[in-house]
Amino acid sequence: MEFSSKLLENAVYEMSQLPGIGKRTALRLVLHLLKQPEDQTSKLSVALDTVRKDIKFCANCHNISDVDICEICASPKRDRTLVCVVEDIRDVMAIENTSQYRGLYHVLGGKISPMEGIGPHDLTISSLIKKAKEGEIKELIFALSSTMEGDTTNFYIFKQLDGLDINTSTIARGIAVGDELEYADEVTLGRSILNRIPFEGSLKAN
Amino acid sequence: MEFSSKLLENAVYEMSQLPGIGKRTALRLVLHLLKQPEDQTSKLSVALDTVRKDIKFCANCHNISDVDICEICASPKRDRTLVCVVEDIRDVMAIENTSQYRGLYHVLGGKISPMEGIGPHDLTISSLIKKAKEGEIKELIFALSSTMEGDTTNFYIFKQLDGLDINTSTIARGIAVGDELEYADEVTLGRSILNRIPFEGSLKAN
Repeated sequence: MEFSSKLLENAVYEMSQLPGIGKRTALRLVLHLLKQPEDQTSKLSVALDTVRKDIKFCANCHNISDVDICEICASPKRDRTLVCVVEDIRDVMAIENTSQYRGLYHVLGGKISPMEGIGPHDLTISSLIKKAKEGEIKELIFALSSTMEGDTTNFYIFKQLDGLDINTSTIARGIAVGDELEYADEVTLGRSILNRIPFEGSLKAN
Repeated sequence: MEFSSKLLENAVYEMSQLPGIGKRTALRLVLHLLKQPEDQTSKLSVALDTVRKDIKFCANCHNISDVDICEICASPKRDRTLVCVVEDIRDVMAIENTSQYRGLYHVLGGKISPMEGIGPHDLTISSLIKKAKEGEIKELIFALSSTMEGDTTNFYIFKQLDGLDINTSTIARGIAVGDELEYADEVTLGRSILNRIPFEGSLKAN
């Protein structure tokens, strides 16, 4: 792509550094901004700059937060003996949306992935183990995605908990509510049969 | 979506104002920036701010340009009697890519669209008519998209040229090079038959 303006070329280049945004899309976005009031661009750039510079993480669960201890960790209504281990803030938001969980979270900030050069020390695992050793936690729920990286991370944490009196569990994998069996993949369907639950127990969930 | 941070919420909101970027994508993009060095975010925000504030348009063709008269309009190699009317810079880039065109451009900045509240006076039509009246232009090529808005704009400009000694033409619509006839839509195929060209003439183009 040959540009008639260096300024434009530079803006398109920086925009196209974002994941999933190619050069063409970047150009479309920048041209859109050029057609809008100047105000909109400055609002966007200030918002991005501010979030990047002033972002804070909760000292307890490492979730993104504007205060030192996030709302969830600070709430007296939450069960502090139950901690759900998740990858990032999107998982926290998804679980909070269900209104089914009253424990705390621990945000790892990613998964162990040697391919991407992410080791245990790039995540907040040591802080989780430290919390676990303090003795308040009774159950850890692993809610990482069920990929090789997720399973590796779960197992790494599980090994570190050795000797501590903490129950571990993982969220149930199975057929989604409302899904047809015939369209389910074999692994999921197989697991959902192996990990079947008592019928009476299933009634409670609703 | 409920956010644990106002800063994050604000950045996601501003990002989601861009066309084709929903809240979820915006969140993904902002979280990506948070994982990258601070530098990347500031480069992006500075580039956007700069392009929005310092953007200039060529005084002749209204294309985006860093200088008063753009490279194409300033080039002595270009045929100044031939002007191609396009919608925006992307069309100029697309036509330049073909290396088949040696005339100048005129960038309208959009199409007449009453639905979107865009009238002739929001575009650079009066500047085109002024140039046309100066007498240097011998042929105007309409290269707007063939939609109702594009056709309306073409016709509006055509009427304004009344009484001037200027040829007008429109780019050929037809079956794309390499396309199979059986998959072409009827309108395009129909037009390509009506507007067939002498076989000898078609040999020149290659």
